[in-house]
Amino acid sequence: MKTNNARKAQCPVFQDMTLEEREQVLALFENEHYPAGETILREGLSIQILWIIVAGRCEVLKSFNGAPERSLAVLEQGAVFGEMSFFNPAPHSASVRALTDVEVIRLSRERYDELLSRNPAAAYKVAANTASVLAERLRKMDDWTCQLLDGPDVNAKKREEWHDFRAKLYTEWDF
Amino acid sequence: MKTNNARKAQCPVFQDMTLEEREQVLALFENEHYPAGETILREGLSIQILWIIVAGRCEVLKSFNGAPERSLAVLEQGAVFGEMSFFNPAPHSASVRALTDVEVIRLSRERYDELLSRNPAAAYKVAANTASVLAERLRKMDDWTCQLLDGPDVNAKKREEWHDFRAKLYTEWDF
Repeated sequence: MKTNNARKAQCPVFQDMTLEEREQVLALFENEHYPAGETILREGLSIQILWIIVAGRCEVLKSFNGAPERSLAVLEQGAVFGEMSFFNPAPHSASVRALTDVEVIRLSRERYDELLSRNPAAAYKVAANTASVLAERLRKMDDWTCQLLDGPDVNAKKREEWHDFRAKLYTEWDF
Repeated sequence: MKTNNARKAQCPVFQDMTLEEREQVLALFENEHYPAGETILREGLSIQILWIIVAGRCEVLKSFNGAPERSLAVLEQGAVFGEMSFFNPAPHSASVRALTDVEVIRLSRERYDELLSRNPAAAYKVAANTASVLAERLRKMDDWTCQLLDGPDVNAKKREEWHDFRAKLYTEWDF
């Protein structure tokens, strides 16, 4: 399946990069193909890979207390996954499975570290773009949860727990 | 008030930096002093500054629908603030006020951009450390909220809204 770099470059991971930086970063990605039904990323594993869907669709699945996996979301062409563990290693909280035949490009942490020594300005942009999207998500999730917790649907005890949790979350930079 | 770079360098912003990188980054920070009661950062303003408390304590305050400001948290020595808007410009969601006499160091986005052209490897580490802390916070907030929403305290309609919101949040990389 042929894909072109112009299409891949629209992904926000590559935002603010010069054409040269984009080419250099894209050259470090590997192409992979998965048939429909195959698991690409397994919940609980700690692997540091950044994935971008070039063609096809994937499903995000999570198991809950031993019950069968539940579908959480569908990832379309252009979607990125693995970005949280890429900068903060931790077991993946969900699996990703190919819904259709899927073509992805993937960047391993090892290759990213090569980029870091060869072209730190380009590596910087991947990190800054990820920090930006994570800040945006955190802000939105915080708004959503604050609205719920300050609304009539939740009792006062939970509200207090939320405010304690949140105060701790934002004031401690624990790694 | 005298502070030394060794103490400042313990802040997670400087994680994984060489001694030389730390010195170079710290040299770009400005020292500021605020008397108790003074507002350092005002809710609603969009300014891109990264702050670190070197001595003293601050209060995080937020106004709710025109009601008087409510204290959300206390920031101690070593605490960082402004990091979300630093990589994702947006109006600050809360104010920060000096509770005691406070000494801070602050890095403006302009000076950070200078660093980016002079020493992108050091600038990279500030971005990667921020991405890491944001990923960690997002994961914790997500866990907290999932536990609440999948528990007995919330009705099924809210639970469904949460799952829809969350699916969208993680699959869309909108800037």
